[in-house]
Amino acid sequence: MVSRKNEVNIMVKNSVDVIFGGLSYWIFGYAFSFGTDPGTNWFCGIGMFFTDSDDIENMGWIFAKFVFQASFATTATTIVSGAMAERTKLESYCLVSLFNTLIYCFPAHWVWAEEGIFFQMGAIDIAGAGAVHLVGGITGLIATIMLKPRRGRFDGSRSAEMSNPTNAILGMFMLWWGWLGFNCGSTFGISGGKWKLATRAAVTTLTASIGGGVTGIIGSRIVKPMGRKFDISFLNNGVLGGLVAITSLCALARPWEGLLIGTVGGLLAIFSPWAIEKMKIDDPVGVVGVHAVAAVWGLLSAGIFAEPDTIEAFNDRRGLIYGGGFELLGIQLLMSVTIIVWTALSSYLLLYIVDKSVGLRCSVEHEILGADIVEHGINNTTQEERKNISREFASL
Amino acid sequence: MVSRKNEVNIMVKNSVDVIFGGLSYWIFGYAFSFGTDPGTNWFCGIGMFFTDSDDIENMGWIFAKFVFQASFATTATTIVSGAMAERTKLESYCLVSLFNTLIYCFPAHWVWAEEGIFFQMGAIDIAGAGAVHLVGGITGLIATIMLKPRRGRFDGSRSAEMSNPTNAILGMFMLWWGWLGFNCGSTFGISGGKWKLATRAAVTTLTASIGGGVTGIIGSRIVKPMGRKFDISFLNNGVLGGLVAITSLCALARPWEGLLIGTVGGLLAIFSPWAIEKMKIDDPVGVVGVHAVAAVWGLLSAGIFAEPDTIEAFNDRRGLIYGGGFELLGIQLLMSVTIIVWTALSSYLLLYIVDKSVGLRCSVEHEILGADIVEHGINNTTQEERKNISREFASL
Amino acid sequence: MVSRKNEVNIMVKNSVDVIFGGLSYWIFGYAFSFGTDPGTNWFCGIGMFFTDSDDIENMGWIFAKFVFQASFATTATTIVSGAMAERTKLESYCLVSLFNTLIYCFPAHWVWAEEGIFFQMGAIDIAGAGAVHLVGGITGLIATIMLKPRRGRFDGSRSAEMSNPTNAILGMFMLWWGWLGFNCGSTFGISGGKWKLATRAAVTTLTASIGGGVTGIIGSRIVKPMGRKFDISFLNNGVLGGLVAITSLCALARPWEGLLIGTVGGLLAIFSPWAIEKMKIDDPVGVVGVHAVAAVWGLLSAGIFAEPDTIEAFNDRRGLIYGGGFELLGIQLLMSVTIIVWTALSSYLLLYIVDKSVGLRCSVEHEILGADIVEHGINNTTQEERKNISREFASL
Repeated sequence: MVSRKNEVNIMVKNSVDVIFGGLSYWIFGYAFSFGTDPGTNWFCGIGMFFTDSDDIENMGWIFAKFVFQASFATTATTIVSGAMAERTKLESYCLVSLFNTLIYCFPAHWVWAEEGIFFQMGAIDIAGAGAVHLVGGITGLIATIMLKPRRGRFDGSRSAEMSNPTNAILGMFMLWWGWLGFNCGSTFGISGGKWKLATRAAVTTLTASIGGGVTGIIGSRIVKPMGRKFDISFLNNGVLGGLVAITSLCALARPWEGLLIGTVGGLLAIFSPWAIEKMKIDDPVGVVGVHAVAAVWGLLSAGIFAEPDTIEAFNDRRGLIYGGGFELLGIQLLMSVTIIVWTALSSYLLLYIVDKSVGLRCSVEHEILGADIVEHGINNTTQEERKNISREFASL
Repeated sequence: MVSRKNEVNIMVKNSVDVIFGGLSYWIFGYAFSFGTDPGTNWFCGIGMFFTDSDDIENMGWIFAKFVFQASFATTATTIVSGAMAERTKLESYCLVSLFNTLIYCFPAHWVWAEEGIFFQMGAIDIAGAGAVHLVGGITGLIATIMLKPRRGRFDGSRSAEMSNPTNAILGMFMLWWGWLGFNCGSTFGISGGKWKLATRAAVTTLTASIGGGVTGIIGSRIVKPMGRKFDISFLNNGVLGGLVAITSLCALARPWEGLLIGTVGGLLAIFSPWAIEKMKIDDPVGVVGVHAVAAVWGLLSAGIFAEPDTIEAFNDRRGLIYGGGFELLGIQLLMSVTIIVWTALSSYLLLYIVDKSVGLRCSVEHEILGADIVEHGINNTTQEERKNISREFASL
Repeated sequence: MVSRKNEVNIMVKNSVDVIFGGLSYWIFGYAFSFGTDPGTNWFCGIGMFFTDSDDIENMGWIFAKFVFQASFATTATTIVSGAMAERTKLESYCLVSLFNTLIYCFPAHWVWAEEGIFFQMGAIDIAGAGAVHLVGGITGLIATIMLKPRRGRFDGSRSAEMSNPTNAILGMFMLWWGWLGFNCGSTFGISGGKWKLATRAAVTTLTASIGGGVTGIIGSRIVKPMGRKFDISFLNNGVLGGLVAITSLCALARPWEGLLIGTVGGLLAIFSPWAIEKMKIDDPVGVVGVHAVAAVWGLLSAGIFAEPDTIEAFNDRRGLIYGGGFELLGIQLLMSVTIIVWTALSSYLLLYIVDKSVGLRCSVEHEILGADIVEHGINNTTQEERKNISREFASL
């Protein structure tokens, strides 16, 4: 998705997400999200800093939950890396990864911890449409606005092309199967081994991705973006938008609802990049549409399609079409808005501090040369690309 | 395996298999395969259209089975995509994916559903040698015959080279591990949690792939195809042929039988491409040998090596060498022939309809340019490849 | 990690590890490691040759253990392939893979089988720091010394660059997740389903990789090897060194101990290549530092940090800092030295026999041309690389 001269760098940043993001999640992230010591309140948990356990009874659940939740935290950070691609210094990115946990861990508490405010209200976000994707998507949006667009992105000298569509589709496949695991796994986390809900999550996740995928393929055939019959980003964003959208209600939705939720999620993810482009916001890999816009729809869709759970009774509210009126929908909307506001403010603060201290954006020279050669001493570029680099330098 | 100018396209077609194939499997595929409503008979199931379940007792099993079986259905379609590579329009391929479920779902019923005719006869096809691979392989054979060979394939101007052997081996590794999962998982599906059979399936799957792999490596060293000591397609086809062959008997075979079945399966998969080539059938990625020929051997091998299952009693028949005479072998042969005839006729019908309505094959110009640029607006070709394209156009 | 002209070859060798290594592990490897027939002693097991089972009671455990252990055996061989890269004939490599099982299977018996000498002593090597990584690393060291350095490696004409850093990082990610599975799974193998230890193994494996990764990233920033701010091999070796180091104590360590053990493991893996380079030993992918040096540290760290296991009681010894004195540390040291000596001698013998009979190293011409074209008839090189090849031939 990024140009070849930044290919290694984006993968290093994904490692950094696990390494530095995992470190801070272990030190304080799990504590603020799922700690249950005295002092725990609607806003944050307390306890389990430097997560460890001697409690033979509960150790297994705590450690399993930690690993699962650390993956979620890492995912939220990885989403941000896409929005910051091709112009962020690696030093500052390490800092962002380390402290992004501070943005992430509170919404997770609100949504998933027993004392969390939205959990108390009965809000539904089974596998993290709000707590993971919306947080990641909004942080990405703020980051890309603060970083400003990549050089030449809106003066016509640079198209927003994928450099490696094969890898983009491969990545989509990996996310696809990974998502099945996460959406199923989330149910286990909630209901203590109730695999039946997990199987329903698998089916609805599948139908949602089918809905998104059909939308992407047929949508491209109709719209023919840039004259292309089957645009790869339509396919990718359609499938991923469908997957993000179902993340909220997965284990509670019916298969046909999954198809519908995924179709709308796909539509939003496909077309919101146009609006974002119009606003001259440079979103290199389409993070905002897929992760923020589709996630809001996913949260609202739970307010429309939720039904009481007769298996584990982990939800007793009804959505709009099942006679629940606007109550749950209102709660889901409140949760969406709260997460957006929190994430926007806190990520602005974090990025502002990093920018003023270490500096977020690399120099123009480094951006032209690419991060692979500047930060890693790796030169993967072809002759043609090297010519482009020379030309850019000449035009400075 | 395909040329670089069709690399993205083949991956898009794999997505299409999941998206459109998954859609029709949800709408009617599972219903015709595993429905149990009144009207269900030896030929097809009825019920569970738009698969859903409210039945708290059975929901988990139904959904788990649906996801597992949807993967099988998708696999059968993906096999076909290989045979149709490099000359099929994407529009028509979407239709083929959507309706290939109609070819697939009935054999699955015959073999795996309780009322299915071959299930009733006591035929053995544990993980889909017949229901998945033979169906996919024969559909692929019919498709490649109807599509006719790729341009210049048999006039000496174009060799049948892999464009990316690294990815071919990577793909083999992924199939290898995936197969372990599928062959183990099939046992769970059959016997309701009997993990012991699953572990035997894992061991025999491993020894079968070892048998096929040794055959591929030593076979290449002896034959030296095109002067090559270690031909990658020999390695790949050997391993995959071994894996397809063991698919039928996996959880019932002994490890040494797995080795033997895999060795013969590998041999068939390695050498049948030669016969296919002689008949001027253009099989771009060797689908017929690996999936059809090795599958027939796999089905027959179950008639030779089967033993009654003392753990779950899901089989009480004996194969040829264990004193069962030719009865089971005859049933397995009948099943193979029936599946071949059904698949050949039904896939001919489907492809004929698509060909006459939308048209299967792309234009000569598009074939020369490659599907990536024509259908996706992606130009991945090197300068050398672009020269070849110009040369081909000049020679029109 | 290897140059492009050997890229396919190294992947074929990985297949060979599974195919030939798996074959010999099935024939005699499992028997010598885990056989329990009369004759089994402190040095080796007897029984279960051509592994099979009719024993309905134990079949599942035997087969599951076989598949899991066969993966370990294959891993040990794969480690060796890295050290032998770019100059070993494929024929000889097949022989090495086949008989490497003879080097591997006895240490596995000593460490993991009930009658094994180190098991009897109460030594700790939960997931194979000694039995897998140290064996693999030392075999690799002996192999690379016997093979001699690659052409031009120490006369300044050839740097030790990675050809494909993107794939190197991808590979690191795959190992990372795979390791989580192996370290968790090892606990299951030991304690019969005790998932609580497995979850602790997951957490400590994660913190160890974080420790190693932080070391790699910050280490590179400080040292700036070859002027690079963030060297990819520092990152890779840091993470992998951390993972190797925790392999010994994973399910028994505390998360903070995992972080510490991983940090030191990462440091060793990062800086030992310098010493190895100084000794003019050519270790193409850094096998010795990651798998041998970090593994010794891992084994010793178990002697420092071990605590009695209160869940499954599979360890009752205390390490140095928990009041156990030097006893366990001494046992761990003895185990390390024994494995090193055994592996060095037996692998020297095996490689000597293969060298004298078939010959280990390919001809100079073949080395310059690369194994892909010579052994597989595959030419993936760019124009620039072809020029280099011509230049090398001219300089002969």
